Amino acid sequence: MAAPQPQRSPKDAQSMAEKQREISISEFFTKNRHLLGFDSPAKALLTTIKEAVDNSLDACEEAGIAPRLLVEIRPDKPVNLGLELSSQQDQESGANGNGNGKAGRNDTAARGVKNEERYKIIVEDNGPGIVAAQIPRIFGKLLYGSKFHSLKQSRGQQGIGISAAGMYGQLTTGKPVTVYSRTGAKKPAHRFQLLLDMKKNEPVILSGDETVWEKEHGTRIEIVLTGSYKRGQHSVDNYLEQTAIANPHLHLTYKDPKGETIVYPNATSDLPPEAAEIKPHPYGVEMGILSRMLADTSSRNLASFLKDEFCKVGPKTAETILETAGLPPRKNPKRLVQDDVQKLLDAIADTKIAAPPTDCLSPIGEDLVMAGLKTGVEADFYTSVTRPAAVYRGNPFQIEVGIAYGGKLPADDLAKVMRFANRVPLLYQASACAIHKSVLTSNWRSYGLQQSKGALPSGPLVILVHMASVWVPFTSESKEAVAHYPEIIKEIRLALQEAGRQLQRHIRRREREKDAAKKQSYIQKYIPHIGDALQEILEISDAERNEVIETLTDTLERSRKL
Amino acid sequence: MAAPQPQRSPKDAQSMAEKQREISISEFFTKNRHLLGFDSPAKALLTTIKEAVDNSLDACEEAGIAPRLLVEIRPDKPVNLGLELSSQQDQESGANGNGNGKAGRNDTAARGVKNEERYKIIVEDNGPGIVAAQIPRIFGKLLYGSKFHSLKQSRGQQGIGISAAGMYGQLTTGKPVTVYSRTGAKKPAHRFQLLLDMKKNEPVILSGDETVWEKEHGTRIEIVLTGSYKRGQHSVDNYLEQTAIANPHLHLTYKDPKGETIVYPNATSDLPPEAAEIKPHPYGVEMGILSRMLADTSSRNLASFLKDEFCKVGPKTAETILETAGLPPRKNPKRLVQDDVQKLLDAIADTKIAAPPTDCLSPIGEDLVMAGLKTGVEADFYTSVTRPAAVYRGNPFQIEVGIAYGGKLPADDLAKVMRFANRVPLLYQASACAIHKSVLTSNWRSYGLQQSKGALPSGPLVILVHMASVWVPFTSESKEAVAHYPEIIKEIRLALQEAGRQLQRHIRRREREKDAAKKQSYIQKYIPHIGDALQEILEISDAERNEVIETLTDTLERSRKL
Repeated sequence: MAAPQPQRSPKDAQSMAEKQREISISEFFTKNRHLLGFDSPAKALLTTIKEAVDNSLDACEEAGIAPRLLVEIRPDKPVNLGLELSSQQDQESGANGNGNGKAGRNDTAARGVKNEERYKIIVEDNGPGIVAAQIPRIFGKLLYGSKFHSLKQSRGQQGIGISAAGMYGQLTTGKPVTVYSRTGAKKPAHRFQLLLDMKKNEPVILSGDETVWEKEHGTRIEIVLTGSYKRGQHSVDNYLEQTAIANPHLHLTYKDPKGETIVYPNATSDLPPEAAEIKPHPYGVEMGILSRMLADTSSRNLASFLKDEFCKVGPKTAETILETAGLPPRKNPKRLVQDDVQKLLDAIADTKIAAPPTDCLSPIGEDLVMAGLKTGVEADFYTSVTRPAAVYRGNPFQIEVGIAYGGKLPADDLAKVMRFANRVPLLYQASACAIHKSVLTSNWRSYGLQQSKGALPSGPLVILVHMASVWVPFTSESKEAVAHYPEIIKEIRLALQEAGRQLQRHIRRREREKDAAKKQSYIQKYIPHIGDALQEILEISDAERNEVIETLTDTLERSRKL
Repeated sequence: MAAPQPQRSPKDAQSMAEKQREISISEFFTKNRHLLGFDSPAKALLTTIKEAVDNSLDACEEAGIAPRLLVEIRPDKPVNLGLELSSQQDQESGANGNGNGKAGRNDTAARGVKNEERYKIIVEDNGPGIVAAQIPRIFGKLLYGSKFHSLKQSRGQQGIGISAAGMYGQLTTGKPVTVYSRTGAKKPAHRFQLLLDMKKNEPVILSGDETVWEKEHGTRIEIVLTGSYKRGQHSVDNYLEQTAIANPHLHLTYKDPKGETIVYPNATSDLPPEAAEIKPHPYGVEMGILSRMLADTSSRNLASFLKDEFCKVGPKTAETILETAGLPPRKNPKRLVQDDVQKLLDAIADTKIAAPPTDCLSPIGEDLVMAGLKTGVEADFYTSVTRPAAVYRGNPFQIEVGIAYGGKLPADDLAKVMRFANRVPLLYQASACAIHKSVLTSNWRSYGLQQSKGALPSGPLVILVHMASVWVPFTSESKEAVAHYPEIIKEIRLALQEAGRQLQRHIRRREREKDAAKKQSYIQKYIPHIGDALQEILEISDAERNEVIETLTDTLERSRKL
């Protein structure tokens, strides 16, 4: 090797052991903040609003309240808009394609964090409010929440998002999170100011007193952070617009940093059907999980364990499973050794069990998908497909696709793909997403569109895909892309194919109409000349000529229409 | 809305509060296992081997030992190879493109986990070994390790990987992880059998005794898991081959599940230059981190705090910063209020500070990148570029690019992109990666290649990209794709441009040669006929004719070469 021989200071096992340490979850996510969606100031602003809106909508729906939300982005200190720093670029913008090396490096070295913009983010809802005792941990501790341990279609699931947004604010501005909440007209409102102790992952309560608040019930959260406000594809504006499309029951008021107010009124006053919580399906369970369930159960025997802890297992199915496994139904679940667990697992795989219930899912519905597209996209043709529910790893899910085509959409661009998971628009990491992949690997040429190898189809086309599930598997905690489970990709492709065929029919019809129009124009153009020529050759009268023209036109028109 | 009015059971704040719970990190990663790279049996097999090999290589290099590794995949129980289950499909394979809906859903419902394959994975190294007291936590606790808190180029960084692999094995087979380790010839060897308590995230030690082991020093880990062994792009075979390319100092013996042994001998006996640990650079620090550093420091005054805790801050720079901030150099760092911290941060941004040191990085080097490509890829033309080091968020990093072109590479396919981070091949989630994005958004047409809108370039082309850094920002814990930091994308694009221009010169030269050959063939083809024609018209002798031909050929050859 050409490199100069390095000065080595080899370490032994003992000196290495001294460096071993526990890593707290908040330290972990501070260093890996891009996992949570805080890798650029523009994205941080969006992620914070997204997490707060997700929580508000989930809470309202769970409490049966038609949601009315206020979202406000308020500049928090003088903003230096003249200075364009590379660090403020949107992470997916492609960044400085043609800069030259040296300048690039110097720019980077010369930047600090001083000149970034600072905003106060406010999200307020009319939800059920939060019991005061829970507020500090919900907003000031990572991995704390109510949705993680249940199988139910909801926007939030991990118990990380909103506390991570607070942590990001604290990290970049040192300011605490402020929370107002009130659980009813007869209850007092509370106001908390919270920090997160990053070594212990515990909330630090700066203040937490009763206060006066005009709202009868609801929650308001204020986070001050370093961010960057932009327009365009990945913007808060776009996110809120898409959120309104996918949530027609939402009434949303949005105040942007320039002080302008946009109101998205609710299109319906009906809440979506309530998503039910379900128990896990036996086909999704694995060795380790099953062992833990057996150890934790309060059921006294195996038969009731199977019936109580899983969905779609009745007395008969339980009996079949236990017979196949060669295990006595009255056996205490806690007494199973590992071999028994394996037998039980094998028996489950060998037993025919009905698919999990799907009434736990709340899709948007074909009509509302189409209506949403019509509101947001000006086109000639719209179609939508809601697939029946399917299952991955024991989790029910359902795919919906909407397509808008033609009209004023740009004919030479690649198709625009709008992705949603449990009614939440996904704006970042498109290329990492199973939805994007499914669109990319579908054969759009067979539906009459152009598509280059390895690329999205091109044409005046918008494709909307929505996945509803009791547990959406995201590729990272920032919940921006759906993981590539084969079952999910398959369902998305089937939905795309169904919608694609409808699009194909439209495109063919349109082409036929075009052809027909062309033929008609030929007829109109040439027949008079033929008439004139005939008149000249045969020396017929004008009236006879006109008659000939009429007959010819008529015959050709009839043949054209066949 | 068309949906039937649901039966609602609205919840209030009190009933919601009762569902709030803490989520343990191991529960979190069990449910989100795709974050760690365990979303399909094929990927789980690869991830497990990758994590173990990463750790072995890091430990050997840190101890100054030339690594000799054994990797073995042993079928653990009768394998049912006849049955192809959809769950065993590689997650990036595109899955069942043209199946029809109903069959798809029934397949899914009818599958269990019984028939998946089971393997014992063995990875053994000749490294420094691990002190017995540390073994349980290193292999049986998530978020525990030595690399997280240091800024140093290494393969592992999070303290999650290997314990997650053990957890996955336990989850799918119920079997413990077995670890052998010995720290020296005069020390006893130890053998541990470990499980991970998933609620507490703590190791459960089934056994941990002294044992007899023939190795003088080293570590051996055995994990039994449900997996799927495949060949192809995302295979273990491919990963190990690429690992050998990027680590020419590694001697690797690989026994595949069929019992065949492949040896990759080391190409050099020199270890790569040792990567040094560095302190954080002031430009990368943020409000929250700075506050914590101030609180935690053992420095007694601000001036020494700045000098001791950061790189590239000497007495003069410290003085300038504190003067700009209006803070006394002798002030106790623990006495700073929030406004002072902001002032300090602003002053850092306003002060010119040298870029971080780059001797902490250990790139592969242009020669070895080229040599590696030549070993692995048969082509006409090779080139490589190692960029100078650059910085993102205060972290030094360095980009290397290699290109192979022509020869036996398929001319009509999209380019193949090989991605490496700190010498580790990245096989999954290509489209989520900053490397892929940079290749995609570079203009390859200007280098003489074909490229469709939104697609990779096509042609007989392999592109290798390596990122070396003290902290590689991955998009998820499974470390498969580099996050889209603008500074990183920019550097990759600059490296690609440099290599692309060299490729362009080669392609142009080749085209000129082709043109020249074509012209020459014209000369050879037509001049004799011209000679004959002249002979006929002018009635010259054969000798005169030959002379004319020779003169003409000579003149044209000369003009062609200009």
